[in-house]
Amino acid sequence: MPTKITSISVRDIRFPTSEGLHGSDAFHKDPDYSCPYVTIETDVAGLTGNGIAFTLGRGNEVCAAMIEVMKNIVVGRTLEDIIADMRGFWFELANDGQFRWLGPEKGVLHFGVGALVNAVWDLYARKENKPLWQLLAEMSPEALVDCVEFRYISDALTPDEALAILREHAATRAARAEELAGIGLPSYTSSAGWLGYSDDQVRDLVRTYMAAGWTRFKMKIGVDVDAEVRRAALIREEIGADGVLMVDANQVWGVEQAIEYMQHIAPLDPRWIEEPTHPDDILGHAAIAKAVAPIGVAVGECISNAVQHKQFMQAGAMSFCQIDSCRLGGINEVLAVILMAAKFGIPVCPHAGGVGLCEHVQHLAAFNYVAVSPSLDDVMIEYSDHLHEHFIDPVVMRDGRYQLPSQPGYSITMKPASLDDFEFPQGAEWQKRQ
Amino acid sequence: MPTKITSISVRDIRFPTSEGLHGSDAFHKDPDYSCPYVTIETDVAGLTGNGIAFTLGRGNEVCAAMIEVMKNIVVGRTLEDIIADMRGFWFELANDGQFRWLGPEKGVLHFGVGALVNAVWDLYARKENKPLWQLLAEMSPEALVDCVEFRYISDALTPDEALAILREHAATRAARAEELAGIGLPSYTSSAGWLGYSDDQVRDLVRTYMAAGWTRFKMKIGVDVDAEVRRAALIREEIGADGVLMVDANQVWGVEQAIEYMQHIAPLDPRWIEEPTHPDDILGHAAIAKAVAPIGVAVGECISNAVQHKQFMQAGAMSFCQIDSCRLGGINEVLAVILMAAKFGIPVCPHAGGVGLCEHVQHLAAFNYVAVSPSLDDVMIEYSDHLHEHFIDPVVMRDGRYQLPSQPGYSITMKPASLDDFEFPQGAEWQKRQ
Repeated sequence: MPTKITSISVRDIRFPTSEGLHGSDAFHKDPDYSCPYVTIETDVAGLTGNGIAFTLGRGNEVCAAMIEVMKNIVVGRTLEDIIADMRGFWFELANDGQFRWLGPEKGVLHFGVGALVNAVWDLYARKENKPLWQLLAEMSPEALVDCVEFRYISDALTPDEALAILREHAATRAARAEELAGIGLPSYTSSAGWLGYSDDQVRDLVRTYMAAGWTRFKMKIGVDVDAEVRRAALIREEIGADGVLMVDANQVWGVEQAIEYMQHIAPLDPRWIEEPTHPDDILGHAAIAKAVAPIGVAVGECISNAVQHKQFMQAGAMSFCQIDSCRLGGINEVLAVILMAAKFGIPVCPHAGGVGLCEHVQHLAAFNYVAVSPSLDDVMIEYSDHLHEHFIDPVVMRDGRYQLPSQPGYSITMKPASLDDFEFPQGAEWQKRQ
Repeated sequence: MPTKITSISVRDIRFPTSEGLHGSDAFHKDPDYSCPYVTIETDVAGLTGNGIAFTLGRGNEVCAAMIEVMKNIVVGRTLEDIIADMRGFWFELANDGQFRWLGPEKGVLHFGVGALVNAVWDLYARKENKPLWQLLAEMSPEALVDCVEFRYISDALTPDEALAILREHAATRAARAEELAGIGLPSYTSSAGWLGYSDDQVRDLVRTYMAAGWTRFKMKIGVDVDAEVRRAALIREEIGADGVLMVDANQVWGVEQAIEYMQHIAPLDPRWIEEPTHPDDILGHAAIAKAVAPIGVAVGECISNAVQHKQFMQAGAMSFCQIDSCRLGGINEVLAVILMAAKFGIPVCPHAGGVGLCEHVQHLAAFNYVAVSPSLDDVMIEYSDHLHEHFIDPVVMRDGRYQLPSQPGYSITMKPASLDDFEFPQGAEWQKRQ
């Protein structure tokens, strides 16, 4: 019996994170971590799928509106028909002849594509009773390649090259899955270094996270070079020469400013500078990467699509690939990007934090290690400790490492009470703030 | 007395152009030319401003929703305060700390920025009782440069370089304005070559347009190489060796496909290939430009922002710059792009057609010629003859040339009856189609 998608609903969920300056950086001073929350209903009792688009608050209702008008492309199909032509399904959703003008493959439109595509994959994994990473890791190289649209990336990666990458590591997948089940995936934390925190708060948090097993820390910069160099020295003092420090400017600079600023902070030996300038500026990032080496350039949370990721790789503009599980058009496009990263030899260090991103990316990093890029050198997944309590199957951290998810699906299902309390504007948590 | 912006309204306006296959191309087979229509009200009797975001139909309501939630950044300000800090106003609108994540500077968010910014400029020009091109052409070089945000483009164009370009041509502006008042601006037409038209229809239309004075024609390609080479030969036969033929693939190919296809059509001597591949693929366009020279590469209607335009110019990926008046973030960002084009020596041939784009870009092309780039070599403005009847101050064509607009404002105000009839879904024209 096929599984028919009978309806899709969308709710506007927002958390008032701006109240504690969590998530504050040079550009985003007061984010309220939010998401349109998508639920796919089917004609199979109890079988549903969830997806989200992560946003910073205002405008979340616009993403929800986008999904509302796009969902008719999905409703009425069977899961089996979608699975039989994943590439075609993705292309149709991402390239509708009228919607496409609003992108293509970027912004609100593409957030909508990602949320719907991920909800379908969540449904698929739940139907198969497997965590998403495992569902992917058990697919054949051919089936995985059939999920990817190559039209705009085949000058950098052909289907045959993608197949070859996947086949090379297919026989040893099981051993790596077993290894991850034991030790989990390495992470770094960005929770100690938000711009809105005081130096004392940062020092206390670094110590707290070190006691819990973290050795890798990221701090926000880009507003006050003297204060930030002082703060970087403070963190370096706490974590020692063996600890890993990263800095993140969240796009605040122009190209020349970025290069100038990095001279001041270079003595503190940051592993990478993240988002030194506008995320569309591929050539600018390439110039910065050349100027600041051996410090790496990390970028990706605001790169819209595989076409842009491709060029960052071709241009030598990206030392670390920070795929974003919600900004890209869902699993299908994530596959394209991590396969290109494997070809170019660029470590994939997913962007996370916000709401639900950690839950998502643990699956992507696990699959990437098991099936695509069998090395953890330079690989670390962002971790931020906000809002996990709202999920049915939240991330589990041990010794600063992500433990392999074991529940079926993509781990993005929220608790009913959280949905009710934080639905905007009618939920109790928002009503009491009015 | 200052002019206070008291309210902003948005209406969802759509035209059923898909019924005649007008606008049909390789990717967009059934566009219904549409726009959210913005009206700024002020406390000065009779003084309003209008702006639009051009879309292809579905999703128009999402752009309208975006503008609805962004408009509070504008309402309550005075026009005088905005004019006193145009750069700051633009930056604040384009970089709100929560909305920004939905872009930055792209997609639905940026369409909203563009519509609001253009509505403010329309208001400004109407208050000054001048057509927009003239308002701009009478601003000092310093005042124009003060409208532009340089943060992400100063590695390609500094404020001083922009000033120098504008100052160089300031003394001779009046002579060029007078010249345009006499002969108007050169155009080409895309109205004869839509993909959905038959060959006979195309031949008839080419003859009709030639009789009306046009010598430059664009046709859509990218679906069937044999049929399209035949059609290109047909048009070449009609227009002769001196006529100008352009071809437009609307992003349908990958990089290698584009290069391969162009070998077949090259003997028909097209002036340019437009949008050979994905509009985000700067390096891909550069590779294509190198391979197809001396045929030029034209691109811009789907380039999101000045940061991307900058790189197209830096990379040699763009032979003709097709600014889009609605996709860019309004006049302020258009100024950035045409100033960069002047520095790089790239002709600006604005994208038009759709609904209202011709009305907009005649102002941009006139200002560009008068104040920024005093040459009409290789300059031609797209013209399509649909939907002009809905505007209060429509374009006027004579001998295939745009005549200089003379009414105050940015020429985008629609007739009240058109707004009522084509408002979606309640307007009479949509009700009778249900």
